[in-house]
Amino acid sequence: MTQAEMGAILAPRWNADGLIAAIAQDAVTKTVLMLAWMNETALHATLKTGRATYWSRSRSRLWVKGEESGHAQRVIEVRIDCDQDAILLLVEQDGPACHTGAADCFYRMVRPDGSLERP
Amino acid sequence: MTQAEMGAILAPRWNADGLIAAIAQDAVTKTVLMLAWMNETALHATLKTGRATYWSRSRSRLWVKGEESGHAQRVIEVRIDCDQDAILLLVEQDGPACHTGAADCFYRMVRPDGSLERP
Repeated sequence: MTQAEMGAILAPRWNADGLIAAIAQDAVTKTVLMLAWMNETALHATLKTGRATYWSRSRSRLWVKGEESGHAQRVIEVRIDCDQDAILLLVEQDGPACHTGAADCFYRMVRPDGSLERP
Repeated sequence: MTQAEMGAILAPRWNADGLIAAIAQDAVTKTVLMLAWMNETALHATLKTGRATYWSRSRSRLWVKGEESGHAQRVIEVRIDCDQDAILLLVEQDGPACHTGAADCFYRMVRPDGSLERP
């Protein structure tokens, strides 16, 4: 196995846009809340401030989760995966995580026939 | 809110490479196991067979999870997020999910100083 996989050195594999996928999971309920993206600045800000900070691809700017909605995420733990191209945040979520008002972004089930159902 | 966000029609927003991020979560323990990628064929195969199928970016081919390792994922539920650019699979995992032999891929914590720790 590689050094990136086994080592103690943080070496994120940023994609062509300089981003890494970041999953936010509720630290208590374990619900997967959302998937967002971080650039290097966002990851460092998250580590330094303990407040989940992402890169908004639609607005092309740094986005401190909750800065407008109030629905912030306090970061309990940051994890990185084997090949260092995905981040997992364990967070305490204030209010709903999703901008639609849903508790999390994964509120629809995909049926085997490809239709969506909101349980 | 948009039709993609509220509707019952599956309309994944594939990225420039024709892929969508897919999070696999253990349906019982709620542990986030891994993040992988799906193309349209992989998503349809997952829905049809109930066996997690991804697109391997490193090998540029369809990858039925466990086809070589035996560490398959039986899919209990498929979910899609608000803007339909991320998938969440709730799975029953056979053996370790990670190719390193770890139970899941997120086995290292990132400390605030940026060093990694294996708890």
